[in-house]
Amino acid sequence: MATKYSYKYFQVHFPADHAYVAHVEINRADKMNAFFEAMWLELAQLFNQLSTDPSVRAILLTGAGEKAFTAGLDVHAASQGLLSPDSNDSADSARKASHLRRHISSFQDCISAVERCEKPVISAMHGFALGLAIDLSTATDVRICARNTKFAVKEVDIGLAADIGTLSRLPKVVGNNGWVKEVALTARVFGAEEAEKVGFVNAVYEDKKRTVEAGLALAKVMAEKSPVAVQGTKEILNWSRDHSVQDGLRYTTVWNSAALQTKDVSDALLSGIQKRKPTFEKL
Amino acid sequence: MATKYSYKYFQVHFPADHAYVAHVEINRADKMNAFFEAMWLELAQLFNQLSTDPSVRAILLTGAGEKAFTAGLDVHAASQGLLSPDSNDSADSARKASHLRRHISSFQDCISAVERCEKPVISAMHGFALGLAIDLSTATDVRICARNTKFAVKEVDIGLAADIGTLSRLPKVVGNNGWVKEVALTARVFGAEEAEKVGFVNAVYEDKKRTVEAGLALAKVMAEKSPVAVQGTKEILNWSRDHSVQDGLRYTTVWNSAALQTKDVSDALLSGIQKRKPTFEKL
Amino acid sequence: MATKYSYKYFQVHFPADHAYVAHVEINRADKMNAFFEAMWLELAQLFNQLSTDPSVRAILLTGAGEKAFTAGLDVHAASQGLLSPDSNDSADSARKASHLRRHISSFQDCISAVERCEKPVISAMHGFALGLAIDLSTATDVRICARNTKFAVKEVDIGLAADIGTLSRLPKVVGNNGWVKEVALTARVFGAEEAEKVGFVNAVYEDKKRTVEAGLALAKVMAEKSPVAVQGTKEILNWSRDHSVQDGLRYTTVWNSAALQTKDVSDALLSGIQKRKPTFEKL
Amino acid sequence: MATKYSYKYFQVHFPADHAYVAHVEINRADKMNAFFEAMWLELAQLFNQLSTDPSVRAILLTGAGEKAFTAGLDVHAASQGLLSPDSNDSADSARKASHLRRHISSFQDCISAVERCEKPVISAMHGFALGLAIDLSTATDVRICARNTKFAVKEVDIGLAADIGTLSRLPKVVGNNGWVKEVALTARVFGAEEAEKVGFVNAVYEDKKRTVEAGLALAKVMAEKSPVAVQGTKEILNWSRDHSVQDGLRYTTVWNSAALQTKDVSDALLSGIQKRKPTFEKL
Amino acid sequence: MATKYSYKYFQVHFPADHAYVAHVEINRADKMNAFFEAMWLELAQLFNQLSTDPSVRAILLTGAGEKAFTAGLDVHAASQGLLSPDSNDSADSARKASHLRRHISSFQDCISAVERCEKPVISAMHGFALGLAIDLSTATDVRICARNTKFAVKEVDIGLAADIGTLSRLPKVVGNNGWVKEVALTARVFGAEEAEKVGFVNAVYEDKKRTVEAGLALAKVMAEKSPVAVQGTKEILNWSRDHSVQDGLRYTTVWNSAALQTKDVSDALLSGIQKRKPTFEKL
Amino acid sequence: MATKYSYKYFQVHFPADHAYVAHVEINRADKMNAFFEAMWLELAQLFNQLSTDPSVRAILLTGAGEKAFTAGLDVHAASQGLLSPDSNDSADSARKASHLRRHISSFQDCISAVERCEKPVISAMHGFALGLAIDLSTATDVRICARNTKFAVKEVDIGLAADIGTLSRLPKVVGNNGWVKEVALTARVFGAEEAEKVGFVNAVYEDKKRTVEAGLALAKVMAEKSPVAVQGTKEILNWSRDHSVQDGLRYTTVWNSAALQTKDVSDALLSGIQKRKPTFEKL
Repeated sequence: MATKYSYKYFQVHFPADHAYVAHVEINRADKMNAFFEAMWLELAQLFNQLSTDPSVRAILLTGAGEKAFTAGLDVHAASQGLLSPDSNDSADSARKASHLRRHISSFQDCISAVERCEKPVISAMHGFALGLAIDLSTATDVRICARNTKFAVKEVDIGLAADIGTLSRLPKVVGNNGWVKEVALTARVFGAEEAEKVGFVNAVYEDKKRTVEAGLALAKVMAEKSPVAVQGTKEILNWSRDHSVQDGLRYTTVWNSAALQTKDVSDALLSGIQKRKPTFEKL
Repeated sequence: MATKYSYKYFQVHFPADHAYVAHVEINRADKMNAFFEAMWLELAQLFNQLSTDPSVRAILLTGAGEKAFTAGLDVHAASQGLLSPDSNDSADSARKASHLRRHISSFQDCISAVERCEKPVISAMHGFALGLAIDLSTATDVRICARNTKFAVKEVDIGLAADIGTLSRLPKVVGNNGWVKEVALTARVFGAEEAEKVGFVNAVYEDKKRTVEAGLALAKVMAEKSPVAVQGTKEILNWSRDHSVQDGLRYTTVWNSAALQTKDVSDALLSGIQKRKPTFEKL
Repeated sequence: MATKYSYKYFQVHFPADHAYVAHVEINRADKMNAFFEAMWLELAQLFNQLSTDPSVRAILLTGAGEKAFTAGLDVHAASQGLLSPDSNDSADSARKASHLRRHISSFQDCISAVERCEKPVISAMHGFALGLAIDLSTATDVRICARNTKFAVKEVDIGLAADIGTLSRLPKVVGNNGWVKEVALTARVFGAEEAEKVGFVNAVYEDKKRTVEAGLALAKVMAEKSPVAVQGTKEILNWSRDHSVQDGLRYTTVWNSAALQTKDVSDALLSGIQKRKPTFEKL
Repeated sequence: MATKYSYKYFQVHFPADHAYVAHVEINRADKMNAFFEAMWLELAQLFNQLSTDPSVRAILLTGAGEKAFTAGLDVHAASQGLLSPDSNDSADSARKASHLRRHISSFQDCISAVERCEKPVISAMHGFALGLAIDLSTATDVRICARNTKFAVKEVDIGLAADIGTLSRLPKVVGNNGWVKEVALTARVFGAEEAEKVGFVNAVYEDKKRTVEAGLALAKVMAEKSPVAVQGTKEILNWSRDHSVQDGLRYTTVWNSAALQTKDVSDALLSGIQKRKPTFEKL
Repeated sequence: MATKYSYKYFQVHFPADHAYVAHVEINRADKMNAFFEAMWLELAQLFNQLSTDPSVRAILLTGAGEKAFTAGLDVHAASQGLLSPDSNDSADSARKASHLRRHISSFQDCISAVERCEKPVISAMHGFALGLAIDLSTATDVRICARNTKFAVKEVDIGLAADIGTLSRLPKVVGNNGWVKEVALTARVFGAEEAEKVGFVNAVYEDKKRTVEAGLALAKVMAEKSPVAVQGTKEILNWSRDHSVQDGLRYTTVWNSAALQTKDVSDALLSGIQKRKPTFEKL
Repeated sequence: MATKYSYKYFQVHFPADHAYVAHVEINRADKMNAFFEAMWLELAQLFNQLSTDPSVRAILLTGAGEKAFTAGLDVHAASQGLLSPDSNDSADSARKASHLRRHISSFQDCISAVERCEKPVISAMHGFALGLAIDLSTATDVRICARNTKFAVKEVDIGLAADIGTLSRLPKVVGNNGWVKEVALTARVFGAEEAEKVGFVNAVYEDKKRTVEAGLALAKVMAEKSPVAVQGTKEILNWSRDHSVQDGLRYTTVWNSAALQTKDVSDALLSGIQKRKPTFEKL
């Protein structure tokens, strides 16, 4: 299995006792898993592959090493690239703007690959989870973390409004707009407990090890359900977030007009009656 | 009063000391108030009647018996109907899809009758509140529950994405998208305390009896206010949920251009000064 | 500085040790800071001025006196004006409706000036914070309060649906729709603790003095960041609240295509490396 | 067939040589087919029945008699009902508004039944086609007319803004907003030629007889195609009118994920190769 | 009457035989009615005044002199102001962007005052109608022109995308997106006949004199109708342009719940029966 | 130049006397330019390359050979692929639906690459322009055609609702919804004259040769303007199509806050005064 997933900046594991679960690890521990362009391009490629791999039904995303889920953008790399005043050859502001739009769009699109992935994605965070860590984890479906996690919407500290997803997704993840404004406008660090209180993470665990175990266990539960049901649920929830209730209901109707024809329904019902675990065809 | 409300699967009470309050009870205790098609058709008819009945200003919705608010869809009935692979005579997938769309839309529409009802609806839950219980209660305005309530977005366990409202309404009821994703993707049971913590219910009471009393008391408070003000408030909040702030403000303006012409305003102001309870004309 | 800000119903201070922070005080303590028309017209004028004043980077809004942030609409004044049945000379309901629409729109627009203000606004509340206090504070970015604060969405008690912003903004500020419905449909008073629990306020402080100090400290942190970054963050968060994630991402891209050309980015990065506070050009 | 369709104000024919085509005639020729409440209630019932009748694949809507498609609202009946100042027992403007909202919504919903009907509807008009005629025909998919047709958005002439659909649908039917504004703000009569020029009707025929024949011929063409394809096309076009291109594309994808599984596709392809008319299973 | 309307760059006439009609003339004929900042600020003030003046029910907008409706932006003035590279004191691109946003928004808002005006506005154009002429006339409800009119979406010729309304409104005024793209991307001049063919103008008249007369006649017809009906029609059509049919229908319902309470309805009905012109109370 | 553009199914020319114009030819004349999967994948790749190539400012799209712009989907290839009942290995309808969604989305996305291309695209059609030809040309900015062109929204004839863009884009390209419904529900062929009358094409030319020349001439005009202005105009028009006027205005403001900083504006103004052609820096 894992041999299909050969990436430079990400390790993909398939834990033996967690059928259909893929464990993706950001793999640049020596730099606190800080991201530069080659990494987010690879991230998109990886999640596109996972999205349609019938051997995968749920995904866990973690960061290698003890220090950080990810410390965010590799500012050193960025200051020589995107954020460098001299990175575009034109001196014309409008032309610079055009290059910046292309660059930001492409970057956003890579992170959005995690949201577009048809399978549910759980992020299990620890240590530093700054800047891009928020963009990335808000594109996952469920967030959990270790007690030592230090979060920050760091971007205003480097002179910019967060533009890779945080400002668009965080207010729809957390139902406390005042808190979102505060952490985004001050860049202050917040911890695991606060993250749980406002609903940014679903649960807090003692340390990284237990967080990853909990993430795997959660992924396993999702992977044991009908993939037709699970993937439909993710898609409809994402659609509903961005539409009226009326449009959400209609989309659900149309979606389920195909999905309800699956034999997973009768398999699941029968297994329920027979009190055994159902098995489902790949998807 | 109650004689106007003769339904097979629902009891409607008008508690003597709660003027203008209707208490609707799901009345199939022997089957844990599980729903089948005749019931949701009746539910819609009932709430349409309540919606325009001038003797009703607030509604409480509960389930009969000690065991359940509702255990959800009556899977036995459903497996012989909607979810049966042979329920549509055509073997053509597109034609089956067409029949399923009509069926799901009609079912959704029945549950949405609770949301469309012009009067506020409070659901007071206890015992099992599974599957359809979530669809139904998210269509009410306020949810409260007894300490023993067991909730679950149960649908993925029977191989399908919840399609009668939960996936469209729950994320707009509860401001914690990660939690919504978790409970919808795992079908795990959650209790009263967790429901309160995430904001799914407004309050938890010791047992069913006290929950129903609290629901009646809350309905009574709403029923004592100007019905012009209360019904306008429900409508504008539902509209605002699905529109931008700008569109919400404009709709409010147009709504209130008629509503502010009521004499309830001067009656309420005068009563306030005279420190007595106002009475309002029926609506 | 302060001489530029000469208003009748609002005091504007520029605390010496809080560079770029404006402190706006509602200044009608003898009437519990209750609002009438001249006040909200002045409020709009004031926030329009603050919005483009390059000497201002963050704003604190408080109420004068010990009793109230604001007791809301001055009902006495209103009952002689807007809410008076005789305030429009025509007896024709449609013509009255037309006058009411103009009046409500104009009133809403004044309060929306706080939201439109390009600089972040923090409201620090104490004592009574009723009716219009909710409309007003939901138009600010962050809300904090003193332990003694008494909040209420008071409007149904005077026979009307709140129409100056509360019903459109409160559900997008607080991710607990059932709670919003309850307090809006009952007009019941809620305290500081409950306000914090549901996420209406970010924090609660011992008394008014400490609340104001905390508000100033928070404003100071925001005022020390790059104004390009801070003002962009406020704008994008407000846009994202009312749009899909996709539209939010695109707007962010276009916004930052100009904003990222600021030298604040390199100044902030350099200051970070040199571990000193950056200074930023006015905006 | 036709015996299933027994209505008082509408005749339903099934022309022998037009398989799957239903011809609905507004049947109150002595009053120029003017509508009153019982008629629009019946209209909704009729189109709901047609919508799911597998023997129907396309519908033609015409008016009986030589004088009018419909002269619109029966003003005599209306002035004793809806438009009567005394029709609601309350003297309170807000309560009157509430009754009016219920009434208008119910009326709109009856006309929208034509749009919601899953089968395509062609309206073939002649003579007077005033007021409600525009509301009604803009809810159909295709409009044609006889040379003698006299159209008018008549409502401003009786002191009201058209509220049964014209103002919402006409601007989306006709791509000339200035013309829509002109005819709606002046109530002036326009003829068949002008209607064709601005795209309100697809074609003009010499007289009523030829218009009806052309309508039947057009319905016949639609009825000969795969009903899966035709009904999907109507639905997706209506959805796309009200959504962004992006949302339209996505909805189409989800819709066709079931519809493309039909064997109508292979039947149609095969018939194409064999140069014969395909037959399709009922829907 | 006219003495109430004392403006420097606009003449306001009240033609004796056109009751309730205001004729606004752009009054800078020596410069082909080209606009600079003081003019659009005055334009907004003027239309705000007309919007609520009960003596005004319809408005005609024309340009003084024989040469031009308006030649657009006064490029000479603009090149010393807005479009000047040195017009903002900061050298920082992000700060310049901030100033430009404020400036463009304020300019747009002035032109939008014409659209927001509660009374219908007809623009009658002649001669040159370039650049801003398109922004301005698309904000009016109906456009007519003289045969000699020369139109152009001129902005790409001076290096910018039209930003005062043309690109947002023209595609919603004219239902031919390819034509809109062509004229906006090439800046080519088009004449009256082409403007009529694509639906940009409703009618073409022989010369300026006859165009103005036709505009006055059209305004007169609108001014003779119930102002409740006319103003409601304009508002609902503008709302519907920007919303789904469903949202349009609902808004109409709420609007008319107040408007239908007018006695204009019974006055209009009675006048119809008595075949005389109704008179309506001011609005 | 052209050597950079080496594609199998598309020829890219750079006509010598049309600086900055790319001429793309669909290059499968022996099969009437019918599309199969490899072709639309290549199409997307090609337009992505053109989108950011600074040597390209406008694009013409034509079909090779005399017979067809494109006859649409290669049904032979499709019947062995996508439309084949056996193309997915699973027998489960829900799993088939999942594969179909991925396939349709990917196909749509390839055609949307033409719309997303930052440079304006003109399609010049001739001969057969069926099915996919409509999907493809509605994704271009301007359509012109030869007198002999035969158009059809062909999909219902092969048992399916058009799903690659026609049903979402055609109603927004052409302001005649009844006509769109008719041609989409009947699949009837329509000619160049009708296409021009309804606004589907901007102009009709005598034969293919003259159509291509006219297309090149039009592209040349666009390529001579400031690329900052042209590309901004395309983007803002596409955004405005899918948003309210208010959202369109705001997006324009933010876009132009960067774009107006270009020196193209002063270059264009100066060239205008000096009556010479401006030259603009690449973009």
